Amino acid sequence: MKKFEEKTIHTEQIFEGRIIRLQVDDIVLPDGKEGKREIIKHPGAVAVLALTAEGKIILVEQYRKALERSLVEIPAGKLEAGEEPEVCARRELEEETGYACESMMLLQSFYTSPGFADELVHVFIAKGLVKKENALSLDEDEFVEVMEVTLAEAEQLIKDQRIFDAKTVYVIQYLQLQQQLNK
Amino acid sequence: MKKFEEKTIHTEQIFEGRIIRLQVDDIVLPDGKEGKREIIKHPGAVAVLALTAEGKIILVEQYRKALERSLVEIPAGKLEAGEEPEVCARRELEEETGYACESMMLLQSFYTSPGFADELVHVFIAKGLVKKENALSLDEDEFVEVMEVTLAEAEQLIKDQRIFDAKTVYVIQYLQLQQQLNK
Repeated sequence: MKKFEEKTIHTEQIFEGRIIRLQVDDIVLPDGKEGKREIIKHPGAVAVLALTAEGKIILVEQYRKALERSLVEIPAGKLEAGEEPEVCARRELEEETGYACESMMLLQSFYTSPGFADELVHVFIAKGLVKKENALSLDEDEFVEVMEVTLAEAEQLIKDQRIFDAKTVYVIQYLQLQQQLNK
Repeated sequence: MKKFEEKTIHTEQIFEGRIIRLQVDDIVLPDGKEGKREIIKHPGAVAVLALTAEGKIILVEQYRKALERSLVEIPAGKLEAGEEPEVCARRELEEETGYACESMMLLQSFYTSPGFADELVHVFIAKGLVKKENALSLDEDEFVEVMEVTLAEAEQLIKDQRIFDAKTVYVIQYLQLQQQLNK
């Protein structure tokens, strides 16, 4: 998995923020020429497809500053340093929706933007949801509204472009596939 | 789609590269408190699920510097300034694989990393592939190896984590769904 490897000559650290780091690497290309790569380092994230006993999907609407609009997404959040993805998934689900769950299973992991970022998202499926009395609370700069929708309603949210991100579109398609497989 | 809007007090431009820009916005949160958002601006991209007459999927393997490994992905690339997504999709398909196509249809668009980046990927499906004699060539810093695989082979590439990115995992699941719907 090193095909066409690009060796690093020099790394310039441009920015170290609260969430992302930016570096520019000077590289040697496979043909010996030199080039540059702009790279975002990200801690990685989790996302949770949480299904109620009635088969409804739990979604959260929140403002996405990078887009200057709100999106409806499955609950998600960044990994803290050293945090196991499943632990993070349970924490984010509880913080954003107030639900704990009996089972939390990894569905699929994927890199979101391999052309410029190393963000890896682990997508989990949560079942056996239990509303918690004293749930963990959101970070102080997080504001979300929780929704519970049917698969048909989620499909409409995609058509309306209120659901508009890779991880959520992926899990809705996953549910469509499961529905066909279970016919 | 402005729920929980975060108003900008000040934008600091940190970096302007060849592909991405980085800015930090000082914001006012819905509760009146202040916060910061680290934001990557990206021109947007296209990706192409190209199917041969035999139903094989055209994939490209390339080195992804951000991950320090190669990935097997569907052909993809960034939008040039003012470029229509479909035009970009036809250009990238030809540059990376040597194929032109009769039909190029938008399948789905999605934001890849709405938590920190505005990258929007338009995923197309291309059919009626025709190998071109004098195809457009790759950018001088691009090196890719073209593969043609069956759906079963693509599923194995996901299990082997050689296919490991959101857009490619999404389209493989799309084909699984179509296979079930056409049964």
